[in-house]
Amino acid sequence: MQRILTGDLKKHIGKTVTVQGWLHKKRLLGGLTFINVRDRAGLVQVVVKDKTEVEKLRGLQIGTVLTITGRVKEEKRASGGVELHDPKLTVDVPVTDEPPIEIDKPLSHKSDNLDTLFDYRAIGLRNLQEAKIFKIRSELARYLREFLQKNEFVEINTPKLCSGAAEGGAEVFKLDYFGQEATLAQSPQLYKQMMVGVFERVFEIAPAFRAELSATTRHVSEVTMLDLEMGFIDGHEDVLDMVQDMVFDATKRAYDELSDELKSLNAPQLKLKPKFPRYSMHQIHELYSKETGNDTTKELDLIPDEEKWICEYAKDHDGCEAVFAIGLPKEKMKFYHMDNEDGTARSADLLFRGVEISTVPQREHRYEKLLAQMKAAGVDPDSQGFAAYVSAFKFGLPAHGGCGFGIDRFTEKIIGLANIKEAILFPRDINRLAP
Amino acid sequence: MQRILTGDLKKHIGKTVTVQGWLHKKRLLGGLTFINVRDRAGLVQVVVKDKTEVEKLRGLQIGTVLTITGRVKEEKRASGGVELHDPKLTVDVPVTDEPPIEIDKPLSHKSDNLDTLFDYRAIGLRNLQEAKIFKIRSELARYLREFLQKNEFVEINTPKLCSGAAEGGAEVFKLDYFGQEATLAQSPQLYKQMMVGVFERVFEIAPAFRAELSATTRHVSEVTMLDLEMGFIDGHEDVLDMVQDMVFDATKRAYDELSDELKSLNAPQLKLKPKFPRYSMHQIHELYSKETGNDTTKELDLIPDEEKWICEYAKDHDGCEAVFAIGLPKEKMKFYHMDNEDGTARSADLLFRGVEISTVPQREHRYEKLLAQMKAAGVDPDSQGFAAYVSAFKFGLPAHGGCGFGIDRFTEKIIGLANIKEAILFPRDINRLAP
Repeated sequence: MQRILTGDLKKHIGKTVTVQGWLHKKRLLGGLTFINVRDRAGLVQVVVKDKTEVEKLRGLQIGTVLTITGRVKEEKRASGGVELHDPKLTVDVPVTDEPPIEIDKPLSHKSDNLDTLFDYRAIGLRNLQEAKIFKIRSELARYLREFLQKNEFVEINTPKLCSGAAEGGAEVFKLDYFGQEATLAQSPQLYKQMMVGVFERVFEIAPAFRAELSATTRHVSEVTMLDLEMGFIDGHEDVLDMVQDMVFDATKRAYDELSDELKSLNAPQLKLKPKFPRYSMHQIHELYSKETGNDTTKELDLIPDEEKWICEYAKDHDGCEAVFAIGLPKEKMKFYHMDNEDGTARSADLLFRGVEISTVPQREHRYEKLLAQMKAAGVDPDSQGFAAYVSAFKFGLPAHGGCGFGIDRFTEKIIGLANIKEAILFPRDINRLAP
Repeated sequence: MQRILTGDLKKHIGKTVTVQGWLHKKRLLGGLTFINVRDRAGLVQVVVKDKTEVEKLRGLQIGTVLTITGRVKEEKRASGGVELHDPKLTVDVPVTDEPPIEIDKPLSHKSDNLDTLFDYRAIGLRNLQEAKIFKIRSELARYLREFLQKNEFVEINTPKLCSGAAEGGAEVFKLDYFGQEATLAQSPQLYKQMMVGVFERVFEIAPAFRAELSATTRHVSEVTMLDLEMGFIDGHEDVLDMVQDMVFDATKRAYDELSDELKSLNAPQLKLKPKFPRYSMHQIHELYSKETGNDTTKELDLIPDEEKWICEYAKDHDGCEAVFAIGLPKEKMKFYHMDNEDGTARSADLLFRGVEISTVPQREHRYEKLLAQMKAAGVDPDSQGFAAYVSAFKFGLPAHGGCGFGIDRFTEKIIGLANIKEAILFPRDINRLAP
């Protein structure tokens, strides 16, 4: 028996073929039984007339695994343009209970309680719309990875079990590691910088862990991060250009290659230029204050409403809904960022559709300056967690920069979801550690 | 200034170009100074005659970051077939201390103490041979991923913070998760099986955590695993075929596309057939006992010497150094494996160059049977960690199987390294949590 996927049935019109999949929907209509069968390619409608065959389906519920041999008939009104007629059914795995969550409705979660959705995630993802989110996510990661490989970035795997908190801060998970304290990596920051000294250009796509105490639509305790780092830059602009080109390439490919999927999920129309506009924080404060009458010129950082506003502004004014906010305040600076010595850090936020999707700094690569910045930040360069890191600078690191880039957040924003957790298969937050 | 990579200098013979890189070696010879400069593409030799330029290098050590403008001269005896002459040097980042570990020797670690190697990992990896290990590793992961994507596997990201130990067992790291106990995922086993119900075919490449109490060349507490799972299989053979084809494809590509790198690392000659031989455990015991006089026919599992022996046997006898050992003993079975009901589990070990690189079972997909096997194994199907898992079966999972496949181990065996840790950037074991 050769299995034919539902997506390929059109090539077999008039022939008798075998499909395998899950019972996805069952309707009785005028003495006939119509079933939808789902496989990894989509759905096909099967018209069951024969009484013996109808009888096989009695009492069986959504999720039942079926093997069906039937004749492919063209049917323009049906999903995929074909139906299966005169089927012979084999019940491979019977399901006799009703599923705890509806899976044959479009995007049921929009109205449902998210907690219910996540409680029954393993079943709810069988909804075709839900599954599409993660097919898109898988493709986005592929586009990003292919862009970086084309640009000679080496993919690395850095440890998630560490001896200290790389970025300091309280939001770190701790665990017992054979009698000593270990932390879970909040990012591969230190490791990717060290690897600039080996490969010049590196990236990693991996989980990162943050003990986020907030319960919001934006906070999760485990994220999937794309981290990249590149050396021998001429200046900060080189890093901004690389991240811009990566985001442009992946977004463009998504809207070109996944347009049907994005449309069916009601993803926003795309407005993007190959060169993202760049506004300084100062400019954004000025523009926003003038436009809204809400004076933000004394604010250190962008306020959330400004992040939204500047994206809308750039969309209208520059025809591009991705925008860099440059000249971030020195106060926001981490010890490994480069200080512009003018009250700003050599860092930029990449904003897309109203939120920051990445921070893109140049790093301080001069050994003595780095040591001074670490000490000023209360980080001990001689401690076990930092000794190797500072040695990489002592023995020569070129000018470099990079970014952390959330795959979850990017997926959320590309599709236009309301909550980052909808872009994560099994989200984790302060209230959720299962399934 | 346009930077030219050392690997591209051959295209610029007779021209004056600019390269950037690290001082990798410095020699004085007959009044001339020869330096090797390293960038991400390799090395170039620079001949420094001019006294002002020679003076700039005084006191500078390996690792110094340089920008060099010079004339490209063909020189067949030099690495890359060219040299740079009449250079103008700019010292971008001076290094004045000698590095703690030699980096200009081939594969220094073979004779060095591994602990020293790992203590100075950030610097030691600048050795070109060391770096090659990880370029090969990066490519191996790309080949594996591309094979799976071509075969319609969806890449997923499953949580590493879990509420229970998926596979039971003692070797699990525990941590405090906002007041409740969490475990670090030993594998994505439960999640990938649930996702068969959504995507049919899934894979993930991600860290996995094992609190290994042993300190050997094979034990590390953090590994990078490729996990795959596929549904709607006709039988166990389908899974074996897929894993076989994946390993064949990735290995073949490595030996075709990375032959120079593999040769320079003294990787073993490859002997591989597209169809890996399959021997039952029983056959292996018989063959081994007959050949060696060491009677293993009463052994439950393969003994380590048999794993080595059968790989050698298959290499000579079948012309293939990868081999499946099928019909594993039921005693080795996990609760989610399928029982053959004849004293064996429907599982196979994939052996390559003397060691197991993957276990490839069919899973028990029948709800009632699975529940019984869980209970027999002392696993509570109703506990928080397993409720969603069993629900995926209750609501219909087709016959499926998959494997876990260590990227570290595969890299080690492809190159022919002596220790799995040499294939890991920053290895973790019972004695090592840094750098």
